[in-house]
Amino acid sequence: MKTITSIQNPLVKQITGLKEKSRERKKSGFFVLEGERELHLALKGKYMVETVLFCDDIFPEEKIPSLSVSSGTRFIKISKEIYQKIAYRETTEGILAITKSKDHSLENLKIQNKNPLILVAEAPEKPGNIGALLRTADAANLDAVIIANPKTDLYNPNIIRSSVGCIFTNNIAVGSTTEIIEFLKINQIHINCAALTASVHYHTVDFTKPAAIVVGTEATGLSDEWLDNSSQNIIIPMQGEIDSMNVSVSAAIIIFEAKRQRNFH
Amino acid sequence: MKTITSIQNPLVKQITGLKEKSRERKKSGFFVLEGERELHLALKGKYMVETVLFCDDIFPEEKIPSLSVSSGTRFIKISKEIYQKIAYRETTEGILAITKSKDHSLENLKIQNKNPLILVAEAPEKPGNIGALLRTADAANLDAVIIANPKTDLYNPNIIRSSVGCIFTNNIAVGSTTEIIEFLKINQIHINCAALTASVHYHTVDFTKPAAIVVGTEATGLSDEWLDNSSQNIIIPMQGEIDSMNVSVSAAIIIFEAKRQRNFH
Repeated sequence: MKTITSIQNPLVKQITGLKEKSRERKKSGFFVLEGERELHLALKGKYMVETVLFCDDIFPEEKIPSLSVSSGTRFIKISKEIYQKIAYRETTEGILAITKSKDHSLENLKIQNKNPLILVAEAPEKPGNIGALLRTADAANLDAVIIANPKTDLYNPNIIRSSVGCIFTNNIAVGSTTEIIEFLKINQIHINCAALTASVHYHTVDFTKPAAIVVGTEATGLSDEWLDNSSQNIIIPMQGEIDSMNVSVSAAIIIFEAKRQRNFH
Repeated sequence: MKTITSIQNPLVKQITGLKEKSRERKKSGFFVLEGERELHLALKGKYMVETVLFCDDIFPEEKIPSLSVSSGTRFIKISKEIYQKIAYRETTEGILAITKSKDHSLENLKIQNKNPLILVAEAPEKPGNIGALLRTADAANLDAVIIANPKTDLYNPNIIRSSVGCIFTNNIAVGSTTEIIEFLKINQIHINCAALTASVHYHTVDFTKPAAIVVGTEATGLSDEWLDNSSQNIIIPMQGEIDSMNVSVSAAIIIFEAKRQRNFH
Protein backbone atom coordinates (compact mmCIF):
# COMPACT_ATOMS: atom_id res chain seq x y z
CA MET A 1 0.00 0.00 0.00
CA LYS A 2 1.19 3.46 -0.90
CA THR A 3 2.17 5.71 1.99
CA ILE A 4 2.46 9.47 1.91
CA THR A 5 4.50 11.23 4.52
CA SER A 6 5.56 14.41 2.70
CA ILE A 7 3.38 17.46 2.90
CA GLN A 8 4.81 18.38 -0.53
CA ASN A 9 3.12 15.42 -2.18
CA PRO A 10 0.87 16.60 -5.04
CA LEU A 11 -2.06 14.64 -3.62
CA VAL A 12 -2.03 16.86 -0.52
CA LYS A 13 -2.36 19.90 -2.72
CA GLN A 14 -5.09 18.26 -4.78
CA ILE A 15 -7.15 17.47 -1.68
CA THR A 16 -6.73 20.95 -0.25
CA GLY A 17 -7.85 22.37 -3.59
CA LEU A 18 -10.90 20.10 -3.76
CA LYS A 19 -11.91 21.07 -0.26
CA GLU A 20 -11.39 24.77 -0.53
CA LYS A 21 -12.33 25.57 -4.10
CA SER A 22 -15.70 25.03 -5.72
CA ARG A 23 -13.97 25.68 -9.04
CA GLU A 24 -11.58 22.77 -8.48
CA ARG A 25 -14.47 20.48 -7.67
CA LYS A 26 -16.37 21.49 -10.79
CA LYS A 27 -13.35 21.24 -13.06
CA SER A 28 -12.27 17.82 -11.85
CA GLY A 29 -15.67 16.31 -11.05
CA PHE A 30 -14.36 15.11 -7.69
CA PHE A 31 -14.79 16.15 -4.06
CA VAL A 32 -13.48 15.12 -0.66
CA LEU A 33 -15.53 13.56 2.11
CA GLU A 34 -14.43 12.92 5.67
CA GLY A 35 -15.45 10.34 8.23
CA GLU A 36 -16.37 6.67 8.32
CA ARG A 37 -20.13 7.21 8.43
CA GLU A 38 -19.98 9.62 5.51
CA LEU A 39 -17.97 7.08 3.52
CA HIS A 40 -20.47 4.31 4.28
CA LEU A 41 -23.39 6.52 3.26
CA ALA A 42 -21.64 7.58 0.04
CA LEU A 43 -20.98 3.94 -0.86
CA LYS A 44 -24.58 3.06 -0.05
CA GLY A 45 -25.64 5.96 -2.27
CA LYS A 46 -23.57 4.41 -5.11
CA TYR A 47 -20.95 7.11 -5.23
CA MET A 48 -17.70 6.09 -6.91
CA VAL A 49 -14.88 6.38 -4.38
CA GLU A 50 -11.58 6.87 -6.19
CA THR A 51 -9.15 7.10 -3.27
CA VAL A 52 -9.40 6.40 0.44
CA LEU A 53 -6.79 8.10 2.60
CA PHE A 54 -6.40 6.98 6.18
CA CYS A 55 -4.15 7.78 9.05
CA ASP A 56 -3.49 4.46 10.75
CA ASP A 57 -2.64 6.09 14.06
CA ILE A 58 -6.38 6.83 14.22
CA PHE A 59 -8.08 4.53 11.72
CA PRO A 60 -6.47 1.08 12.03
CA GLU A 61 -5.60 -0.67 8.79
CA GLU A 62 -7.48 -3.80 9.95
CA LYS A 63 -10.74 -1.91 9.50
CA ILE A 64 -10.09 -1.32 5.79
CA PRO A 65 -11.58 -4.62 4.54
CA SER A 66 -14.88 -3.77 6.27
CA LEU A 67 -15.32 -0.82 3.91
CA SER A 68 -17.26 -2.20 1.00
CA VAL A 69 -15.58 -0.12 -1.68
CA SER A 70 -15.34 -1.28 -5.26
CA SER A 71 -12.24 -3.05 -6.53
CA GLY A 72 -11.02 0.05 -8.34
CA THR A 73 -10.59 2.13 -5.18
CA ARG A 74 -7.01 2.79 -4.16
CA PHE A 75 -5.94 3.08 -0.53
CA ILE A 76 -3.26 5.41 0.70
CA LYS A 77 -1.80 5.59 4.17
CA ILE A 78 -1.00 9.08 5.39
CA SER A 79 0.99 10.36 8.32
CA LYS A 80 -0.67 12.14 11.22
CA GLU A 81 0.97 15.38 10.15
CA ILE A 82 -0.65 15.19 6.72
CA TYR A 83 -3.96 14.10 8.15
CA GLN A 84 -4.01 17.11 10.43
CA LYS A 85 -3.23 19.37 7.53
CA ILE A 86 -6.01 18.14 5.27
CA ALA A 87 -8.78 17.22 7.75
CA TYR A 88 -11.17 19.45 9.62
CA ARG A 89 -9.70 20.39 12.93
CA GLU A 90 -12.49 18.70 14.84
CA THR A 91 -12.57 15.56 12.68
CA THR A 92 -10.76 12.78 14.47
CA GLU A 93 -11.84 9.75 12.53
CA GLY A 94 -8.67 9.43 10.51
CA ILE A 95 -10.30 8.76 7.15
CA LEU A 96 -11.01 10.79 4.00
CA ALA A 97 -12.01 9.89 0.47
CA ILE A 98 -11.71 11.46 -2.93
CA THR A 99 -15.08 10.76 -4.48
CA LYS A 100 -16.68 11.34 -7.86
CA SER A 101 -19.47 13.90 -8.00
CA LYS A 102 -22.85 12.86 -9.36
CA ASP A 103 -24.76 14.65 -12.07
CA HIS A 104 -27.64 16.42 -10.31
CA SER A 105 -29.23 18.02 -13.34
CA LEU A 106 -33.00 18.09 -13.35
CA GLU A 107 -33.33 15.98 -16.49
CA ASN A 108 -31.63 13.12 -14.67
CA LEU A 109 -33.97 13.25 -11.68
CA LYS A 110 -35.85 10.00 -11.30
CA ILE A 111 -38.84 9.85 -8.99
CA GLN A 112 -40.13 6.33 -8.43
CA ASN A 113 -43.08 7.18 -6.22
CA LYS A 114 -46.32 7.93 -8.10
CA ASN A 115 -47.42 10.19 -5.23
CA PRO A 116 -44.20 12.01 -4.42
CA LEU A 117 -43.40 14.43 -1.63
CA ILE A 118 -40.61 16.81 -2.61
CA LEU A 119 -38.72 19.61 -0.92
CA VAL A 120 -37.58 22.58 -3.01
CA ALA A 121 -35.22 25.15 -1.48
CA GLU A 122 -34.57 28.32 -3.40
CA ALA A 123 -31.10 29.85 -3.22
CA PRO A 124 -30.22 28.58 0.26
CA GLU A 125 -27.06 30.34 1.33
CA LYS A 126 -25.71 28.89 4.53
CA PRO A 127 -24.18 25.44 4.16
CA GLY A 128 -25.46 24.66 7.67
CA ASN A 129 -29.04 25.30 6.58
CA ILE A 130 -28.65 23.10 3.51
CA GLY A 131 -27.18 20.36 5.67
CA ALA A 132 -30.06 20.63 8.14
CA LEU A 133 -32.63 20.49 5.30
CA LEU A 134 -30.96 17.35 3.96
CA ARG A 135 -31.05 15.69 7.40
CA THR A 136 -34.77 16.38 7.67
CA ALA A 137 -35.36 15.20 4.10
CA ASP A 138 -33.58 11.95 4.89
CA ALA A 139 -35.57 11.42 8.09
CA ALA A 140 -38.79 12.00 6.17
CA ASN A 141 -37.59 9.83 3.29
CA LEU A 142 -38.62 12.48 0.77
CA ASP A 143 -38.75 11.46 -2.86
CA ALA A 144 -36.47 14.29 -3.90
CA VAL A 145 -34.78 17.47 -2.74
CA ILE A 146 -34.42 20.11 -5.43
CA ILE A 147 -32.19 23.14 -5.02
CA ALA A 148 -33.20 26.16 -7.10
CA ASN A 149 -30.57 28.69 -8.13
CA PRO A 150 -27.92 27.35 -5.77
CA LYS A 151 -25.40 29.75 -4.26
CA THR A 152 -22.83 27.05 -3.64
CA ASP A 153 -22.06 23.63 -5.06
CA LEU A 154 -23.46 20.64 -3.21
CA TYR A 155 -20.07 19.22 -2.36
CA ASN A 156 -18.99 22.16 -0.27
CA PRO A 157 -17.30 20.48 2.75
CA ASN A 158 -19.55 22.39 5.15
CA ILE A 159 -22.67 21.03 3.46
CA ILE A 160 -21.32 17.47 3.59
CA ARG A 161 -20.43 17.87 7.24
CA SER A 162 -23.61 19.59 8.41
CA SER A 163 -25.73 17.06 6.52
CA VAL A 164 -23.94 14.31 8.51
CA GLY A 165 -23.75 12.41 5.23
CA CYS A 166 -27.38 12.99 4.15
CA ILE A 167 -26.02 14.66 1.04
CA PHE A 168 -25.43 11.05 -0.08
CA THR A 169 -28.72 9.51 1.01
CA ASN A 170 -31.10 11.96 -0.66
CA ASN A 171 -32.27 12.07 -4.25
CA ILE A 172 -31.02 15.55 -5.12
CA ALA A 173 -31.42 17.72 -8.20
CA VAL A 174 -30.34 21.24 -8.97
CA GLY A 175 -31.80 23.67 -11.46
CA SER A 176 -33.05 27.16 -12.11
CA THR A 177 -36.35 28.26 -10.61
CA THR A 178 -37.87 28.42 -14.12
CA GLU A 179 -36.80 24.86 -14.96
CA ILE A 180 -38.02 23.47 -11.66
CA ILE A 181 -41.43 25.12 -11.92
CA GLU A 182 -41.79 23.65 -15.39
CA PHE A 183 -40.73 20.23 -14.11
CA LEU A 184 -43.27 20.31 -11.29
CA LYS A 185 -46.06 21.48 -13.57
CA ILE A 186 -45.37 18.84 -16.22
CA ASN A 187 -45.38 16.19 -13.52
CA GLN A 188 -48.59 17.58 -11.97
CA ILE A 189 -47.00 18.12 -8.59
CA HIS A 190 -48.74 20.71 -6.39
CA ILE A 191 -46.50 23.66 -5.59
CA ASN A 192 -46.86 24.76 -1.96
CA CYS A 193 -44.82 27.90 -1.34
CA ALA A 194 -43.99 28.91 2.22
CA ALA A 195 -44.49 32.68 2.35
CA LEU A 196 -44.82 35.15 5.21
CA THR A 197 -47.47 36.97 3.16
CA ALA A 198 -49.67 33.89 2.78
CA SER A 199 -52.97 33.63 4.59
CA VAL A 200 -53.56 29.89 4.38
CA HIS A 201 -52.19 27.93 7.32
CA TYR A 202 -49.94 25.04 6.33
CA HIS A 203 -51.89 22.46 8.31
CA THR A 204 -55.15 23.18 6.48
CA VAL A 205 -53.65 22.20 3.13
CA ASP A 206 -54.01 18.72 1.65
CA PHE A 207 -50.56 17.18 1.23
CA THR A 208 -51.81 13.70 0.36
CA LYS A 209 -51.54 14.32 -3.40
CA PRO A 210 -48.23 14.78 -5.27
CA ALA A 211 -46.73 17.79 -3.53
CA ALA A 212 -43.68 20.00 -3.45
CA ILE A 213 -42.95 22.12 -0.38
CA VAL A 214 -41.01 25.17 -1.49
CA VAL A 215 -38.98 27.32 0.92
CA GLY A 216 -36.91 30.45 0.34
CA THR A 217 -34.19 32.14 2.31
CA GLU A 218 -34.62 33.54 5.80
CA ALA A 219 -33.61 36.97 4.60
CA THR A 220 -35.74 37.45 1.51
CA GLY A 221 -38.13 34.50 1.29
CA LEU A 222 -39.15 33.14 -2.11
CA SER A 223 -38.84 35.00 -5.38
CA ASP A 224 -41.97 36.32 -7.10
CA GLU A 225 -41.55 33.69 -9.78
CA TRP A 226 -42.30 30.98 -7.22
CA LEU A 227 -45.15 32.86 -5.58
CA ASP A 228 -46.73 33.60 -8.95
CA ASN A 229 -46.56 29.98 -10.04
CA SER A 230 -47.66 28.51 -6.75
CA SER A 231 -50.64 26.16 -6.43
CA GLN A 232 -50.99 27.40 -2.87
CA ASN A 233 -49.03 29.81 -0.71
CA ILE A 234 -48.89 28.66 2.89
CA ILE A 235 -47.75 30.05 6.20
CA ILE A 236 -46.89 28.69 9.62
CA PRO A 237 -48.89 30.77 12.10
CA MET A 238 -46.44 32.84 14.13
CA GLN A 239 -47.76 33.80 17.53
CA GLY A 240 -44.73 35.33 19.21
CA GLU A 241 -42.80 38.55 19.02
CA ILE A 242 -40.61 37.72 16.06
CA ASP A 243 -41.73 37.10 12.54
CA SER A 244 -39.32 34.59 11.09
CA MET A 245 -38.16 31.07 11.76
CA ASN A 246 -35.02 29.28 10.79
CA VAL A 247 -35.59 27.88 7.28
CA SER A 248 -34.65 24.34 8.25
CA VAL A 249 -37.05 24.46 11.20
CA SER A 250 -39.99 25.79 9.19
CA ALA A 251 -39.35 23.31 6.37
CA ALA A 252 -39.31 20.46 8.90
CA ILE A 253 -42.63 21.56 10.43
CA ILE A 254 -44.33 21.57 7.04
CA ILE A 255 -42.67 18.37 5.80
CA PHE A 256 -43.72 16.43 8.89
CA GLU A 257 -47.27 17.77 8.70
CA ALA A 258 -47.34 16.36 5.16
CA LYS A 259 -45.93 13.07 6.44
CA ARG A 260 -48.55 12.98 9.20
CA GLN A 261 -51.34 13.48 6.66
CA ARG A 262 -49.86 10.62 4.67
CA ASN A 263 -49.66 8.40 7.77
CA PHE A 264 -45.92 8.24 7.31
CA HIS A 265 -46.31 6.04 4.23
CA MET B 1 -23.61 62.76 27.22
CA LYS B 2 -20.55 60.85 28.30
CA THR B 3 -18.20 59.80 25.52
CA ILE B 4 -15.56 57.11 25.71
CA THR B 5 -12.71 57.10 23.27
CA SER B 6 -9.99 55.31 25.23
CA ILE B 7 -9.70 51.58 24.97
CA GLN B 8 -8.23 51.71 28.49
CA ASN B 9 -11.52 52.87 29.97
CA PRO B 10 -12.65 50.46 32.72
CA LEU B 11 -16.07 50.14 31.06
CA VAL B 12 -14.45 48.53 28.04
CA LYS B 13 -12.87 45.93 30.30
CA GLN B 14 -16.17 45.41 32.13
CA ILE B 15 -18.05 44.75 28.89
CA THR B 16 -15.43 42.37 27.58
CA GLY B 17 -15.57 40.50 30.88
CA LEU B 18 -19.38 40.29 30.82
CA LYS B 19 -19.31 38.97 27.28
CA GLU B 20 -16.57 36.44 27.67
CA LYS B 21 -16.99 35.15 31.19
CA SER B 22 -20.03 33.40 32.58
CA ARG B 23 -18.50 33.93 36.03
CA GLU B 24 -18.49 37.70 35.55
CA ARG B 25 -22.13 37.63 34.50
CA LYS B 26 -23.11 35.57 37.52
CA LYS B 27 -21.10 37.64 39.98
CA SER B 28 -22.41 40.99 38.74
CA GLY B 29 -25.92 40.00 37.69
CA PHE B 30 -25.47 41.83 34.38
CA PHE B 31 -24.91 40.83 30.77
CA VAL B 32 -24.35 42.52 27.44
CA LEU B 33 -26.74 42.46 24.50
CA GLU B 34 -26.09 43.73 21.00
CA GLY B 35 -28.36 45.10 18.33
CA GLU B 36 -31.41 47.32 18.10
CA ARG B 37 -33.96 44.54 17.77
CA GLU B 38 -32.47 42.72 20.75
CA LEU B 39 -32.67 45.91 22.80
CA HIS B 40 -36.31 46.46 21.83
CA LEU B 41 -37.21 42.87 22.71
CA ALA B 42 -35.38 43.11 26.06
CA LEU B 43 -37.27 46.31 26.90
CA LYS B 44 -40.53 44.69 25.87
CA GLY B 45 -39.63 41.75 28.09
CA LYS B 46 -39.21 44.19 31.00
CA TYR B 47 -35.49 43.82 31.33
CA MET B 48 -33.74 46.64 33.19
CA VAL B 49 -31.24 48.26 30.86
CA GLU B 50 -28.50 49.97 32.86
CA THR B 51 -26.33 51.40 30.10
CA VAL B 52 -26.72 51.85 26.37
CA LEU B 53 -23.50 52.27 24.42
CA PHE B 54 -23.70 53.43 20.85
CA CYS B 55 -21.26 54.31 18.14
CA ASP B 56 -22.77 57.33 16.40
CA ASP B 57 -20.86 56.67 13.20
CA ILE B 58 -23.24 53.73 12.83
CA PHE B 59 -26.20 54.35 15.16
CA PRO B 60 -27.12 58.03 14.83
CA GLU B 61 -27.78 59.87 18.08
CA GLU B 62 -31.15 61.11 16.75
CA LYS B 63 -32.48 57.56 17.03
CA ILE B 64 -31.83 57.44 20.78
CA PRO B 65 -35.16 59.02 21.85
CA SER B 66 -37.04 56.28 19.96
CA LEU B 67 -35.63 53.68 22.36
CA SER B 68 -38.19 53.45 25.12
CA VAL B 69 -35.74 52.88 27.95
CA SER B 70 -36.52 53.84 31.51
CA SER B 71 -35.34 57.16 32.92
CA GLY B 72 -32.55 55.51 34.89
CA THR B 73 -30.70 54.27 31.81
CA ARG B 74 -27.47 56.05 31.03
CA PHE B 75 -26.24 56.59 27.48
CA ILE B 76 -22.62 56.54 26.46
CA LYS B 77 -21.18 57.42 23.11
CA ILE B 78 -18.25 55.26 22.01
CA SER B 79 -15.72 55.61 19.24
CA LYS B 80 -15.66 53.25 16.30
CA GLU B 81 -12.42 51.77 17.55
CA ILE B 82 -13.99 50.83 20.86
CA TYR B 83 -17.15 49.55 19.20
CA GLN B 84 -15.11 47.27 16.99
CA LYS B 85 -13.24 45.97 20.01
CA ILE B 86 -16.32 45.10 22.05
CA ALA B 87 -18.87 44.09 19.40
CA TYR B 88 -19.15 40.87 17.43
CA ARG B 89 -17.21 41.13 14.24
CA GLU B 90 -20.32 40.72 12.13
CA THR B 91 -22.52 43.03 14.19
CA THR B 92 -22.79 46.34 12.46
CA GLU B 93 -25.69 47.96 14.25
CA GLY B 94 -23.60 50.21 16.44
CA ILE B 95 -25.48 49.60 19.68
CA LEU B 96 -24.93 47.52 22.82
CA ALA B 97 -26.50 47.51 26.26
CA ILE B 98 -25.46 46.42 29.72
CA THR B 99 -28.60 44.77 31.03
CA LYS B 100 -29.66 43.24 34.34
CA SER B 101 -30.19 39.49 34.34
CA LYS B 102 -33.50 38.08 35.49
CA ASP B 103 -33.97 35.41 38.11
CA HIS B 104 -34.95 32.26 36.22
CA SER B 105 -35.31 29.95 39.20
CA LEU B 106 -38.15 27.49 38.97
CA GLU B 107 -39.94 28.84 42.06
CA ASN B 108 -40.35 32.16 40.26
CA LEU B 109 -41.89 30.61 37.15
CA LYS B 110 -45.38 31.90 36.60
CA ILE B 111 -47.63 30.16 34.09
CA GLN B 112 -50.84 32.06 33.38
CA ASN B 113 -52.43 29.57 31.01
CA LYS B 114 -54.55 26.88 32.72
CA ASN B 115 -53.77 24.51 29.85
CA PRO B 116 -50.10 25.18 29.27
CA LEU B 117 -47.78 23.88 26.58
CA ILE B 118 -44.16 23.83 27.77
CA LEU B 119 -40.83 22.91 26.27
CA VAL B 120 -38.18 21.33 28.48
CA ALA B 121 -34.64 20.89 27.16
CA GLU B 122 -32.22 18.82 29.18
CA ALA B 123 -28.59 19.88 29.24
CA PRO B 124 -28.50 21.48 25.79
CA GLU B 125 -24.89 22.17 24.96
CA LYS B 126 -24.59 24.22 21.83
CA PRO B 127 -25.65 27.85 22.20
CA GLY B 128 -26.93 27.69 18.60
CA ASN B 129 -29.32 24.89 19.49
CA ILE B 130 -30.62 26.76 22.52
CA GLY B 131 -31.12 29.86 20.39
CA ALA B 132 -33.01 27.86 17.76
CA LEU B 133 -35.22 26.27 20.43
CA LEU B 134 -36.04 29.72 21.80
CA ARG B 135 -36.97 31.01 18.33
CA THR B 136 -39.36 28.10 17.85
CA ALA B 137 -40.79 28.55 21.36
CA ASP B 138 -41.45 32.21 20.60
CA ALA B 139 -43.12 31.41 17.28
CA ALA B 140 -45.35 28.85 19.01
CA ASN B 141 -45.98 31.23 21.90
CA LEU B 142 -45.21 28.49 24.41
CA ASP B 143 -46.19 29.13 28.00
CA ALA B 144 -42.69 28.38 29.24
CA VAL B 145 -39.29 27.04 28.27
CA ILE B 146 -37.49 25.19 31.03
CA ILE B 147 -33.83 24.29 30.81
CA ALA B 148 -32.78 21.29 32.90
CA ASN B 149 -29.20 21.02 34.16
CA PRO B 150 -27.90 23.79 31.91
CA LYS B 151 -24.35 23.58 30.63
CA THR B 152 -24.06 27.31 30.10
CA ASP B 153 -25.76 30.40 31.50
CA LEU B 154 -28.62 31.84 29.50
CA TYR B 155 -26.90 35.14 28.82
CA ASN B 156 -24.05 33.60 26.86
CA PRO B 157 -23.65 36.02 23.92
CA ASN B 158 -23.99 33.16 21.43
CA ILE B 159 -27.36 32.19 22.89
CA ILE B 160 -28.61 35.78 22.76
CA ARG B 161 -27.42 36.11 19.19
CA SER B 162 -28.69 32.79 17.86
CA SER B 163 -32.06 33.33 19.56
CA VAL B 164 -32.34 36.63 17.61
CA GLY B 165 -33.60 38.15 20.87
CA CYS B 166 -36.08 35.37 21.74
CA ILE B 167 -34.16 34.89 24.96
CA PHE B 168 -36.08 38.01 26.04
CA THR B 169 -39.51 37.11 24.70
CA ASN B 170 -39.87 33.68 26.28
CA ASN B 171 -40.90 32.77 29.81
CA ILE B 172 -37.79 30.87 30.82
CA ALA B 173 -36.89 28.89 33.92
CA VAL B 174 -33.86 26.85 34.83
CA GLY B 175 -33.56 24.00 37.29
CA SER B 176 -32.32 20.51 37.93
CA THR B 177 -34.06 17.58 36.28
CA THR B 178 -35.32 16.42 39.68
CA GLU B 179 -36.81 19.81 40.51
CA ILE B 180 -38.46 20.18 37.11
CA ILE B 181 -40.03 16.73 37.19
CA GLU B 182 -41.44 17.55 40.63
CA PHE B 183 -42.75 20.88 39.33
CA LEU B 184 -44.48 19.25 36.36
CA LYS B 185 -46.02 16.52 38.49
CA ILE B 186 -47.32 18.94 41.12
CA ASN B 187 -48.87 21.02 38.37
CA GLN B 188 -50.31 17.93 36.67
CA ILE B 189 -48.57 18.61 33.40
CA HIS B 190 -48.12 15.56 31.16
CA ILE B 191 -44.47 14.73 30.56
CA ASN B 192 -43.84 13.73 26.92
CA CYS B 193 -40.24 12.63 26.50
CA ALA B 194 -38.73 12.45 23.03
CA ALA B 195 -36.70 9.23 22.95
CA LEU B 196 -35.20 7.19 20.15
CA THR B 197 -36.19 4.06 22.08
CA ALA B 198 -39.86 5.01 22.26
CA SER B 199 -42.46 3.13 20.24
CA VAL B 200 -45.31 5.64 20.33
CA HIS B 201 -45.33 8.08 17.43
CA TYR B 202 -45.52 11.72 18.48
CA HIS B 203 -48.55 12.49 16.34
CA THR B 204 -50.69 9.82 17.98
CA VAL B 205 -50.37 11.45 21.40
CA ASP B 206 -52.97 13.88 22.79
CA PHE B 207 -51.33 17.26 23.38
CA THR B 208 -54.56 19.11 24.10
CA LYS B 209 -54.17 18.72 27.87
CA PRO B 210 -51.48 20.47 29.94
CA ALA B 211 -48.28 19.14 28.36
CA ALA B 212 -44.53 19.39 28.49
CA ILE B 213 -42.45 18.30 25.54
CA VAL B 214 -39.06 17.16 26.84
CA VAL B 215 -36.00 16.85 24.58
CA GLY B 216 -32.44 15.78 25.36
CA THR B 217 -29.15 16.24 23.61
CA GLU B 218 -28.39 14.95 20.15
CA ALA B 219 -25.47 12.95 21.47
CA THR B 220 -26.99 11.15 24.44
CA GLY B 221 -30.71 11.90 24.46
CA LEU B 222 -32.58 12.23 27.74
CA SER B 223 -31.35 10.93 31.07
CA ASP B 224 -33.00 7.87 32.62
CA GLU B 225 -34.52 10.10 35.26
CA TRP B 226 -36.67 11.77 32.60
CA LEU B 227 -37.56 8.53 30.84
CA ASP B 228 -38.50 6.87 34.15
CA ASN B 229 -40.75 9.76 35.14
CA SER B 230 -42.34 10.24 31.76
CA SER B 231 -46.11 10.16 31.22
CA GLN B 232 -45.36 9.05 27.66
CA ASN B 233 -42.20 8.50 25.67
CA ILE B 234 -42.61 9.53 22.06
CA ILE B 235 -40.65 9.26 18.83
CA ILE B 236 -40.65 10.92 15.46
CA PRO B 237 -40.71 8.10 12.89
CA MET B 238 -37.38 8.12 11.07
CA GLN B 239 -37.58 6.61 7.61
CA GLY B 240 -34.19 7.43 6.15
CA GLU B 241 -30.65 6.17 6.52
CA ILE B 242 -29.69 8.14 9.59
CA ASP B 243 -31.15 7.81 13.04
CA SER B 244 -30.98 11.25 14.58
CA MET B 245 -32.31 14.71 13.90
CA ASN B 246 -31.10 18.09 15.02
CA VAL B 247 -32.64 18.72 18.45
CA SER B 248 -34.14 22.06 17.46
CA VAL B 249 -35.72 20.51 14.37
CA SER B 250 -37.24 17.56 16.23
CA ALA B 251 -38.50 19.82 19.03
CA ALA B 252 -40.15 22.08 16.44
CA ILE B 253 -41.90 19.15 14.75
CA ILE B 254 -43.41 17.97 18.04
CA ILE B 255 -44.25 21.48 19.30
CA PHE B 256 -46.12 22.36 16.11
CA GLU B 257 -47.99 19.06 16.12
CA ALA B 258 -49.15 20.02 19.62
CA LYS B 259 -50.11 23.49 18.35
CA ARG B 260 -52.01 21.94 15.45
CA GLN B 261 -53.96 19.72 17.81
CA ARG B 262 -54.78 22.82 19.84
CA ASN B 263 -55.87 24.71 16.70
CA PHE B 264 -53.13 27.21 17.38
CA HIS B 265 -54.99 28.59 20.41
